[in-house]
Amino acid sequence: MLDPNRLFPAEPAIRSVAARLYDAVKDLPIISPHGHTEPRWFAENKPFANPTALFLQPDHYVFRMLYSQGVPLESLGVPQAGVKGDPHAADNIDPREAWRVFAKHYYLFRGTPTRLWLDYAFSTNFGLTERLKPENADHYYDIIDEALQTPEFLPRSLYERFNIEVLSTTDTATDSLEYHQAIKASGWKGRILPTFRPDAVIDAEYVGFKENIEKLGAITKEDVTNWKGYLNALRQRRQFFIANGATATDHGHLTAMTADLPIDEATRLYERIYTGKTEAGDIELFQAQMLTELAGMSVEDGLTMQLHPGSVRNHNLGVYERFGRDKGCDIPSPTEYVRSLRPLLSKYGNEPGFTFILFTLDETTYSRELAPLAGHYPCLRLGPSWWFHDSPEGMMRFREQVTETAGFYNTVGFNDDTRALLSIPARHDVARRVDCAFLGRLVAEHRIDEDEAFELASDLTVGLVRKAYKL
Amino acid sequence: MLDPNRLFPAEPAIRSVAARLYDAVKDLPIISPHGHTEPRWFAENKPFANPTALFLQPDHYVFRMLYSQGVPLESLGVPQAGVKGDPHAADNIDPREAWRVFAKHYYLFRGTPTRLWLDYAFSTNFGLTERLKPENADHYYDIIDEALQTPEFLPRSLYERFNIEVLSTTDTATDSLEYHQAIKASGWKGRILPTFRPDAVIDAEYVGFKENIEKLGAITKEDVTNWKGYLNALRQRRQFFIANGATATDHGHLTAMTADLPIDEATRLYERIYTGKTEAGDIELFQAQMLTELAGMSVEDGLTMQLHPGSVRNHNLGVYERFGRDKGCDIPSPTEYVRSLRPLLSKYGNEPGFTFILFTLDETTYSRELAPLAGHYPCLRLGPSWWFHDSPEGMMRFREQVTETAGFYNTVGFNDDTRALLSIPARHDVARRVDCAFLGRLVAEHRIDEDEAFELASDLTVGLVRKAYKL
Amino acid sequence: MLDPNRLFPAEPAIRSVAARLYDAVKDLPIISPHGHTEPRWFAENKPFANPTALFLQPDHYVFRMLYSQGVPLESLGVPQAGVKGDPHAADNIDPREAWRVFAKHYYLFRGTPTRLWLDYAFSTNFGLTERLKPENADHYYDIIDEALQTPEFLPRSLYERFNIEVLSTTDTATDSLEYHQAIKASGWKGRILPTFRPDAVIDAEYVGFKENIEKLGAITKEDVTNWKGYLNALRQRRQFFIANGATATDHGHLTAMTADLPIDEATRLYERIYTGKTEAGDIELFQAQMLTELAGMSVEDGLTMQLHPGSVRNHNLGVYERFGRDKGCDIPSPTEYVRSLRPLLSKYGNEPGFTFILFTLDETTYSRELAPLAGHYPCLRLGPSWWFHDSPEGMMRFREQVTETAGFYNTVGFNDDTRALLSIPARHDVARRVDCAFLGRLVAEHRIDEDEAFELASDLTVGLVRKAYKL
Repeated sequence: MLDPNRLFPAEPAIRSVAARLYDAVKDLPIISPHGHTEPRWFAENKPFANPTALFLQPDHYVFRMLYSQGVPLESLGVPQAGVKGDPHAADNIDPREAWRVFAKHYYLFRGTPTRLWLDYAFSTNFGLTERLKPENADHYYDIIDEALQTPEFLPRSLYERFNIEVLSTTDTATDSLEYHQAIKASGWKGRILPTFRPDAVIDAEYVGFKENIEKLGAITKEDVTNWKGYLNALRQRRQFFIANGATATDHGHLTAMTADLPIDEATRLYERIYTGKTEAGDIELFQAQMLTELAGMSVEDGLTMQLHPGSVRNHNLGVYERFGRDKGCDIPSPTEYVRSLRPLLSKYGNEPGFTFILFTLDETTYSRELAPLAGHYPCLRLGPSWWFHDSPEGMMRFREQVTETAGFYNTVGFNDDTRALLSIPARHDVARRVDCAFLGRLVAEHRIDEDEAFELASDLTVGLVRKAYKL
Repeated sequence: MLDPNRLFPAEPAIRSVAARLYDAVKDLPIISPHGHTEPRWFAENKPFANPTALFLQPDHYVFRMLYSQGVPLESLGVPQAGVKGDPHAADNIDPREAWRVFAKHYYLFRGTPTRLWLDYAFSTNFGLTERLKPENADHYYDIIDEALQTPEFLPRSLYERFNIEVLSTTDTATDSLEYHQAIKASGWKGRILPTFRPDAVIDAEYVGFKENIEKLGAITKEDVTNWKGYLNALRQRRQFFIANGATATDHGHLTAMTADLPIDEATRLYERIYTGKTEAGDIELFQAQMLTELAGMSVEDGLTMQLHPGSVRNHNLGVYERFGRDKGCDIPSPTEYVRSLRPLLSKYGNEPGFTFILFTLDETTYSRELAPLAGHYPCLRLGPSWWFHDSPEGMMRFREQVTETAGFYNTVGFNDDTRALLSIPARHDVARRVDCAFLGRLVAEHRIDEDEAFELASDLTVGLVRKAYKL
Repeated sequence: MLDPNRLFPAEPAIRSVAARLYDAVKDLPIISPHGHTEPRWFAENKPFANPTALFLQPDHYVFRMLYSQGVPLESLGVPQAGVKGDPHAADNIDPREAWRVFAKHYYLFRGTPTRLWLDYAFSTNFGLTERLKPENADHYYDIIDEALQTPEFLPRSLYERFNIEVLSTTDTATDSLEYHQAIKASGWKGRILPTFRPDAVIDAEYVGFKENIEKLGAITKEDVTNWKGYLNALRQRRQFFIANGATATDHGHLTAMTADLPIDEATRLYERIYTGKTEAGDIELFQAQMLTELAGMSVEDGLTMQLHPGSVRNHNLGVYERFGRDKGCDIPSPTEYVRSLRPLLSKYGNEPGFTFILFTLDETTYSRELAPLAGHYPCLRLGPSWWFHDSPEGMMRFREQVTETAGFYNTVGFNDDTRALLSIPARHDVARRVDCAFLGRLVAEHRIDEDEAFELASDLTVGLVRKAYKL
C-alpha cells in the first residue's frame, strides 16, 4: 500500500534527488507546534475505545466527505453536540456497522490526502497491507480493535513510537491547563505544551462570550468590567500559560483586520462589547483592535503569535444545530492581508524579537500578499499550507508561489494541525516528501546546488520550526 | 497532425499509464449533458452551407482571436445581429475569402485549445493532415466544402459517427420545443434533449423581458401578473420540458447570489419587477430569490440544477451594438460563492435527491470555495472547467485544485458546452486525455493504484455524468 | 555555478527541445522597452563606485530580503532618503563590511530569482565560479572592485557587451531629458530612449504634486489652472518626448479604474484637484479620468500606453519615513480590470493602431480577466509577469494561464523593469530559458510542432516587443 517513492515526481533525475534528501530527514523527530489533540489523552493515558471512535467520529476530514455523498452523519455515530442534537443518539450506533459504511465509501477518498494519511496509519501501525474495501472491513476492524487494547497503543506509547519531540495543543484563555500539569507531574518525559488561544474572550459572537469574560475575571482577580482590567487579565493568563510551557498564541479570526485605536476609543469600544450594547461594526473592530493589543503583548512577553483567518464557520446551519462546531461545515472565503494588517504592522512590524506567523485559506494571497509581506517585514513568517491545502498539491503550490519572493527562511516548517493522533506521523511524512520533491526539482533544474538542498531539507523539517516557535 | 500521445505528459512512466487509461475510455460513447447546438439541425437534417459557415461564423472562440489581432469581424462574414448591425452585411462576403483570412491567421491559435479542436476536426473528418496555412487554404476549403454536400456530413450522420449517446441543448423557458418533438416524431434514434433555461423570464434586464413574461403567461394560461401565478407558470413549463425529455435546468446569472425572502416580501418584489417599478438592487435580488425558488422546484420535480455565474456579458459595447450577443465580448469577473449560496443551501442544501451543479469562470474559487462546499453539502457537485478554462491547462488546474478536497466523486465528468458541432468529439477527446494524464501522474507517484485509475477514468468519462444528469 | 541546462525541465525529451530552442535565441539582441536604469550613467559614463554601491544599495530585491530576516538597512548603507532619514548616515558605512553582511546572508536567496540573477552577473562578468559565502566575501569584493575601475565596466561598455539594441528609461513628465540629449549629442550609438511617465502630475497625493503641475505649466507655457490648458501641456510634453525618441508612456496607478466623464464634469473635477479643494473620491476619479484622456492622446500621437496598477506603495511607514520610496515596502493588492477598464475600452478599445499594454501584480487576473480581455480587444496586449512574478515560476504561471485564451501574439515579450544594470542580461536569459522550457513542453506533448516553436521562441524574444513598442 505504501510505495517507498510515493509522492516523489516520476521523472528519474528529480526522483533520485528527492529520495536522497528524504532519506536524510525521514528519521528526524516530529515537532508539532500547532494542533488540536487532547492533552487529556496523555494525562490519563487510557486506550482508545474502538476503530470508529479513533478514525471516524472525531475526524471531520473523513465524515464530511461521506456526508457530501449522502451518508448521514448519524449512521457514523458522529456525536450530536449541537443545541438541537440528541446527546444519546450515538449510543445506539454499532461502531462496527459505522466502520462498514466507511469501508464501503473508502473509494471516495481517492486522490485526497485523507486517503494517504489513513493508508499510512493502517499500514505502519497495524500492518494492514491490503487497501480498505467492503470485503475486508471486518478484518480491518478486528485487527485495529485488538491492537487498541494493547499497551503499545496507549497515547503515550504512540507519542514515543512516533518519535515526537514536542506536541502543542490549543487551549482557551481560561483553561486550567490541569492536564498539562498532570502530565508534567507524572514524570513522563513527553512534551505536551499548551497554546494560548483567547478567541472565546475576544469574539463577542462566540457562544458563552459573556460568561467566558466573567470567568477570565474570576480566575485572574482582575476587574474585567473595564478595558485596562481586561487587558491585564489577558496578560496574567499569558504568564500562566508561559509558566506551563507555552511558547505561542493562536488566533482564529474571520478576517485579518487589525486596528490601532486611541486609548479612549478602545476603552469605550470595550465598554460596549462588555455590556453587549454594540453598534454596527463593533464586534469586528474589537477583534481587529485586539490583534494589535495581542501583538503588543507578544512584543512584551515573547510568545510567538499565530493568525488563522478566513474561515466562515458553521456554514451549514442544519448540521451545526444538530452536531455542533467542527463538523466539516467551515468554508474558506477571500481574505485580505495588505490593508488589514497595516495598523498592526505599522506599530509592531519592525520590532526585533517579535514573531508573527500568518496562515491562509485563500491561496491567491500566497504570491500576491503574503510572500511580499513576509519578504519585507522582519516579524512576519508564513505558516505552512493550511487545512484544505494541507495536501500534496497544496503544499507544492505553497512552495511554488511563496519561495521566489519570500525565500525558504521566512517560512516555519510544517504544522500538522490535527485532531487525529494517528495522522500525525502520516502528515509529517507527506510534508517531508513534498518538500523533498520540490527541492529535488530545484536541484535537477540547477536552481540550487545539492548541498544546499540537504541543508534546506533539514531546516524545513526541524530547524525553522524550532526557531519560529522557540522550541 | 495528431500524434497518438498528444496531451500526455512527456515523462515516460506517466505517459505509459496515461496511454493505457486512455485506451480504455477513448471509445466510450459521448454524453453531452450541456451545450448550445441547435435542435433544428437534427430535426431538419440539412447540410451545412460551407466551411466558413461551419467553422468560423458561429464560433466566437475562433473569431474573437482574429478580432483581437485587428481582423474586422465584417471580413469574416460574422452576422450583424445587433441593433445597429446591417443584417445584409454578410451577404456580400465570399466565404472562401473569409476562409483565406482565417488560414492566414491560423498561427494565432498556437497553444490554444481551439487549435487542438480544429486540427482534430480537420484530420478526423476530412483526412487533412497538413497544418492549415495560407498556401493550403483553398485546398482545405475545397475538401471540406465538397464533403459537406455528402450524406455523411448531415447532422444526424455526424451525431452517429461521433458515437454520441445523448446531446442536451439549451432552451428558453417559453420555447415550443418543436424541433425536439419533430426529432422524436421522425423516429430517428438520436437523443437530443432540451434543458430548461429561464434566464429570459428572470433577468429583468434581458432584452424583451416583459414580452417574455407575457408569453410565459399566454403559453401556460397562468396569471403572471402576480408572484404565485408566475411561479406556477414556471412549474408548468418545467413539466412540459420534462415531458419532452429534459433532465436538467440551467441558469446563467451575473453572480451566484441567492436569497430566501419571506413570501410577502417576495410577492412585493415580483410586483415591482413585473411592473418595471424597480428600486435599487431589485433586479439582482429577484434573480437571487429565483435561484432559491428554482432549487425548491428541483427538489419537487427532480430536475438537476446547473448554475453558470460570473460572466460580464457584452463588455465591448460597440461590437455588441453591431453584432449582438455571444460575439466573444463576454469577460469573467470575480465570483463569490460562500456567502452568496448560503440562503439557498440553508434551505435545500441537505435535501436528498437534489443535485445542484456549480460552474465558475473564477479559478480562484476552485480550492478556496467550491471544493470545500462540494466536499460537504450532499446536493453540490462541481461542473468541469468552463469556457476559457475548457482547455488542457485549465482542466489540469481544475483536477489539481479540486480533487484533494472534493475528491473525484463530487465532480460530474465533462461538458463540451459548444455551439460548434464538429468540435464535440475533439473536446471530449481532450478531456479524456487530460483526465488520463492527471490519473497517470497520481499512479506514477503512487497516490492511487492503477486498478483504481481505470475505474476512475471510466467514471470521469461516462459514470459521473450519467448519475449527475440522470441520463 | 551556471549549468548550461539550468531552468530547463529535467525530463529529457522536454529538455532537449528546450535546449535547441534556447540555442536559437540566446544570442539575439536584448530589447529592453521598460525599466528604471539611469540615463545619466550612459551620459556621464563614469565607473560604478564599488561592489556594494553596484549590487546592494540600489536593489530593493536584495536588501528587502536581508531586512526581512532582521538585517538593519543602515548596516548595508542603504541611503536614507526619507523625510526623517539622516542623509549622511551612509557615509560612515564601510562598503566592504556591508558586502560581508550580504555574503553572510546569501543563503536567504536560495530558490529566488535574485540568486539566479546575481550568480549570473558574478559569473559572466567577473569570472567568479564559487558560490558567494562568508569565506569568499573579500575575494568577491576585491575581484569586482578591481574590475569596476577598468574601461570594460563603464556603463557604455556594459551596454555594448550585453548586446543591448535599445534600452528605455522611465522619466517624469517634466523631465528635461538632458541626459538622453547628451547621449545623442555624444555620438555614441547606444539607444537610450525616454518613456513618458506623468504620475507625478496626475496623482494628487504624489509628493510635490502642486509644484509639479506648476512646473508643467512653466515648461510648456500652457495655462495649467484649467482643464484644457493642463491637457494641452501634457500633449506638448508628449511631443517633446517623441522628439527625444520615446515610443511609449507608462502609468503607475493604485487601481486600473478608468472613467469617461462629460467635459464639464471633468473640467470641474480638475479645478478641485488643481485648487486642492477635493471631495471624497476625487483623487481616484481624476486618475481614472486621466487614463482615458491619455488613451485618447495615444490614439492621436501613436505612443504605446502601459499600465502598471495594483501596488500599495510604502506599506511600512517607519521604513518609508527614514529611507523613502522604493525600499522594498511596496505590497501588491487585489486588482480588478473588467469593470475598471470598461469606460476607457468603450471609448478607444476598437481603435486601429492603439496599443495598450496591461501589467498586473495579481496573478488571479491572468486567466480570469486579462487573457479574456486581451483575447478580444484589438488594442490590448499583456505585459510579461511583473516584479514579484518576474521569476521562473512566475513566468511559467503567466504562460500557462494566459496562452490558452490570449495566445502568444497578444503578449509583448519580456521587460526587465530593473534598476540594476548588471541584472539585465541575467533577467533576459531567465526569460528566454523559461519561454523555451514552456515551448519545449508544448512540443513534447504534441500541442504545437517544433517548427512553430522555433518561430515562437524568436517572436517572444524580439519580434513581439519590437512590434508592441514600435522599436
